[in-house]
Amino acid sequence: MKVQKITMTDASFERSPGQDGEVFAGNVIDQRHGGPITIGYGRYGPNQSIDETLAVDDVMVVLEGRLSISTEAGTVSAGPGEIVYMPKGERVTIRSHEEGAVTAYVTYPHWQEALA
Amino acid sequence: MKVQKITMTDASFERSPGQDGEVFAGNVIDQRHGGPITIGYGRYGPNQSIDETLAVDDVMVVLEGRLSISTEAGTVSAGPGEIVYMPKGERVTIRSHEEGAVTAYVTYPHWQEALA
Repeated sequence: MKVQKITMTDASFERSPGQDGEVFAGNVIDQRHGGPITIGYGRYGPNQSIDETLAVDDVMVVLEGRLSISTEAGTVSAGPGEIVYMPKGERVTIRSHEEGAVTAYVTYPHWQEALA
Repeated sequence: MKVQKITMTDASFERSPGQDGEVFAGNVIDQRHGGPITIGYGRYGPNQSIDETLAVDDVMVVLEGRLSISTEAGTVSAGPGEIVYMPKGERVTIRSHEEGAVTAYVTYPHWQEALA
């Protein structure tokens, strides 16, 4: 594979599994491209909530807005330039706020394969 | 491992290997923590240049400023919110511009171990 620049316009957003709200994910690099990691963008409407048990190690870099991520151990909140690391196996609730949120995400391994 | 929020203040920056310019990397999550990926922040002074052959898969999310990444195949340039994926084995020159740059990075596997 070659060095690649990725922008949000490269992402074709699909509704994230397990909810019918306004939470969308758009992989740009994933299992289709032969590398070990998935790279994409996430988009959250205002005041959305999604529950998930991480099937992969998942890193979210918040680019816009703010997200709160809750587990049994408590809640962290991240804004622009901040990162949330969600290790495989963790059970989380991810919430957006009034301004919604945009993230860049990297997972290892490929989250779609892990959910298949 | 637990869900963790990571900010730039969590990173203890060290000069990136192979140059004595103003390019610094600060791992926050890496081989010391038991997970498979390294997460950190990169900081580039103005008009810096670093040559590197990728020993790992490396994802840079540009948070501030702009970087140009050149390979034999050409040059890509990324600004805030844009991502550069540098696959293992690629030989690159990374250049910052007048405004310098700040990145969030994720590597698989751990880049420091791969260079050891």
